[in-house]
Amino acid sequence: MNQIKAIVFDAYGTLFDVHTVASRCEQFFPGFGQTISEIWRQKQLEYSWLRSLMGRYENFWHVTEDALGFALKSLGLNANEEVRAAVLEEYLRLKPYPEVPQALQALRHHKLAILSNGTPNMLNAAVTNAGLTDAFSSVISVDEVKSFKPLMGVYQLAPSKLHVRREEILFISSNAWDASGAKVFGFNVCWINRFGKTFEELHVEPDLTITGLDQLIEKL
Amino acid sequence: MNQIKAIVFDAYGTLFDVHTVASRCEQFFPGFGQTISEIWRQKQLEYSWLRSLMGRYENFWHVTEDALGFALKSLGLNANEEVRAAVLEEYLRLKPYPEVPQALQALRHHKLAILSNGTPNMLNAAVTNAGLTDAFSSVISVDEVKSFKPLMGVYQLAPSKLHVRREEILFISSNAWDASGAKVFGFNVCWINRFGKTFEELHVEPDLTITGLDQLIEKL
Repeated sequence: MNQIKAIVFDAYGTLFDVHTVASRCEQFFPGFGQTISEIWRQKQLEYSWLRSLMGRYENFWHVTEDALGFALKSLGLNANEEVRAAVLEEYLRLKPYPEVPQALQALRHHKLAILSNGTPNMLNAAVTNAGLTDAFSSVISVDEVKSFKPLMGVYQLAPSKLHVRREEILFISSNAWDASGAKVFGFNVCWINRFGKTFEELHVEPDLTITGLDQLIEKL
Repeated sequence: MNQIKAIVFDAYGTLFDVHTVASRCEQFFPGFGQTISEIWRQKQLEYSWLRSLMGRYENFWHVTEDALGFALKSLGLNANEEVRAAVLEEYLRLKPYPEVPQALQALRHHKLAILSNGTPNMLNAAVTNAGLTDAFSSVISVDEVKSFKPLMGVYQLAPSKLHVRREEILFISSNAWDASGAKVFGFNVCWINRFGKTFEELHVEPDLTITGLDQLIEKL
């Protein structure tokens, strides 16, 4: 990985802990916080894949809203518009994983960017609220190509925007399916496996596996 | 639905109970049968979607094998080649849901077909082992277009092969994501909701919802 000219991060689940929404859900729906959060995340991903396949793109804010709607309905929970909005807005204030701010600081001599399914608004809010605005030279949203990862055209946004070749990019994701798509595309890939998960069986492997972003510093 | 000229069925989860593999899994991995079956099915679907998006088609037999591999690995279960093969082969002997054979018999004056992610071999084995060979005028596999549902080009196989227009087809699936894709494509769609599930939030609705295939007869 000597020729790395840019490090590109996935956002949700990689830099930001999507399950920080669970405590807000728990406030409104006692006993269901964690379950809502898990179904919500699973459906958010499924809907992004299914909409890409069906050629029916809606942006990630809408997909996230629909996925929350499914989670609540499937659990038999009723929520008025205000409660839904309050829960949904947690997505603009997701917490970064604990080691992330300091690790980004240590990596600041590299060109750092985000490539995410999120809308520009969602990403800017999350980055700003986490105090990470200065960390990234680019925040790239898939919204520009109206499709979601792991479509190959989505990954192409990074080399195009950053003016580097794909093999000069180190792509970092905690989502094994995203790491797999990025590897198929031709990035160098680092999988952050914080929770002892099993990598997907898609016949590609990450170049590097770490359990926290702080470990990346010594590897570069 | 007066103009229906063909009824097209999804196979896995709709005609055939994919979770009949659980008891075979239980034999080899006591205490894990149901869990293996659930992870296996979820990953089978995810890999079909992800491979379609990545442009890395492998047929459904291989996808099913990979998904089983993930399920076992994620549960920390070891299995030699023979055990894996024995479990995988259960997919060739899936049981139809109890009401299916008689309902198909009652629908025999309609043109009936299958449109499935399965390979021709997998589908022929399942249909034959269930004694349903005479029920269908066509068994259509996505393998011909090297992609999986809900890509629109996959649904197009049915009108093309059956020589009817898409709006003359009644498509039947228990998989809400598949029913959604079929509706987006332009079929009439019936969702079989045997287990009180929640329909997907993809902004389309089935034309008809039933809880078993036997209910279709009176609706036509």
